Amino acid sequence: MAKWVCFEDEGQERIGLLEGETIIAHTGDLFDSPAPTDIRRPLGAVRLLPPCRPSKVIALWNNFRQLAAKLDVPEPDEPLYLLKAVSSIAAPGATITRPSSYSGKVVYEGELGIVIGRPLGNATEAEAEAGIFGYTCVNDITAAEIIGRDKTFAQWARAKSFDGFGPFGPVIATGLDPRGLHVRTELNGAERQNYPLDDMIFPPARLISALSRDMTLLPGDLICCGTSLGVGSIKEASNSVTVTIDGIGTLSNRFTQ
Amino acid sequence: MAKWVCFEDEGQERIGLLEGETIIAHTGDLFDSPAPTDIRRPLGAVRLLPPCRPSKVIALWNNFRQLAAKLDVPEPDEPLYLLKAVSSIAAPGATITRPSSYSGKVVYEGELGIVIGRPLGNATEAEAEAGIFGYTCVNDITAAEIIGRDKTFAQWARAKSFDGFGPFGPVIATGLDPRGLHVRTELNGAERQNYPLDDMIFPPARLISALSRDMTLLPGDLICCGTSLGVGSIKEASNSVTVTIDGIGTLSNRFTQ
Repeated sequence: MAKWVCFEDEGQERIGLLEGETIIAHTGDLFDSPAPTDIRRPLGAVRLLPPCRPSKVIALWNNFRQLAAKLDVPEPDEPLYLLKAVSSIAAPGATITRPSSYSGKVVYEGELGIVIGRPLGNATEAEAEAGIFGYTCVNDITAAEIIGRDKTFAQWARAKSFDGFGPFGPVIATGLDPRGLHVRTELNGAERQNYPLDDMIFPPARLISALSRDMTLLPGDLICCGTSLGVGSIKEASNSVTVTIDGIGTLSNRFTQ
Repeated sequence: MAKWVCFEDEGQERIGLLEGETIIAHTGDLFDSPAPTDIRRPLGAVRLLPPCRPSKVIALWNNFRQLAAKLDVPEPDEPLYLLKAVSSIAAPGATITRPSSYSGKVVYEGELGIVIGRPLGNATEAEAEAGIFGYTCVNDITAAEIIGRDKTFAQWARAKSFDGFGPFGPVIATGLDPRGLHVRTELNGAERQNYPLDDMIFPPARLISALSRDMTLLPGDLICCGTSLGVGSIKEASNSVTVTIDGIGTLSNRFTQ
């Protein structure tokens, strides 16, 4: 298993492989055999950036059985999703600020993120599996009251695309099998989500195969697998929100009103 | 008024200014004072590319009064929109092929496209107006039967994001005032849409100002202003679909089943 980060180093954006608490900087394309350099940086001494730059961010709705049962919605026949604007991407450690144009409820949604490693179109499940570069933690932040406020058109993209509403990281973990793992979300130090990834309706290879029949997935594209029980409001003036998946790490952000 | 194109020239992607039927190639960033070169190419001799590379494509729903009246939906209080995947972008002149995974009705939607010229966040209408780089023609192709086929979640992004479903061009026209202009769509030589842009519910500056309160708009981002009366099915084995706006030109694509 390898863990890739992206970080700022003397004003430059670099990628690197994490070994313990040390980053080994690499050159080249993360998705095309990057090469190690002699540059080493302590993880604690750098500012992390989003671990890659997706050309699109696909966010699943209703992809966990326990949440479907709680919301009393049928489990879908096919993946249901929206697109989040790539301008919503935020770095691990970033402080996210409530948008000035919205005063309603904002919720966290801890999720598994899949990062695509090679172009995938009409991929079989085996091809999809081989096309997964790795996994990351996502907080799919949502301005919940926007979704349903127009009765004629559900505003999913808008509710989830404010600047900063798409933090992910801290790393992309390759060679990881997410089966058996849990997503744990803590709000201001209290655990609010702790759900098993085995409960996913469309698990990664099946999901990526289906999505690749709709559109070509490209290296770096981020698929947010949907959330499960425990979604809640971010209410305090300043909040710590963390999303942890064992084997990946903890995505930690502040959200301020 | 200036008309900008992007084209392939000896394997390279270049931008250029159109003077009559001649392209004057430019270097640098289209949105940051590109500089003319000595390279001239006849428009008819090059393969046009999408005139820019948006980081996001925002597509409006229900933005024309005549269509709202026909569909018997209320005119919205605020812009209603979805995001199209940037992988759906296609060039002027490109042949678009029905996706193999979908056998239902595919429709054309001729639209005005707005191309953003500078970063815009929380922009006033005056700032939004000044931040518009130019206008283009869009065909917002849609797999119509996907939108409503799940009763719990309208699949807008999916229906509009198949590869090739977002052709735009042939140029970006700057210094153009779209007021008073019409969008005309022809399917296999027969006029199917001819609607006035003055009928728009959220005209460009108001629209861009509103969108910029939801997310930062970046140079090259494409806003598809929504369509009006005359949307129809693309049924023949091979179809010519053109979208014409005076002062911009004609976006012409083939769609094959």
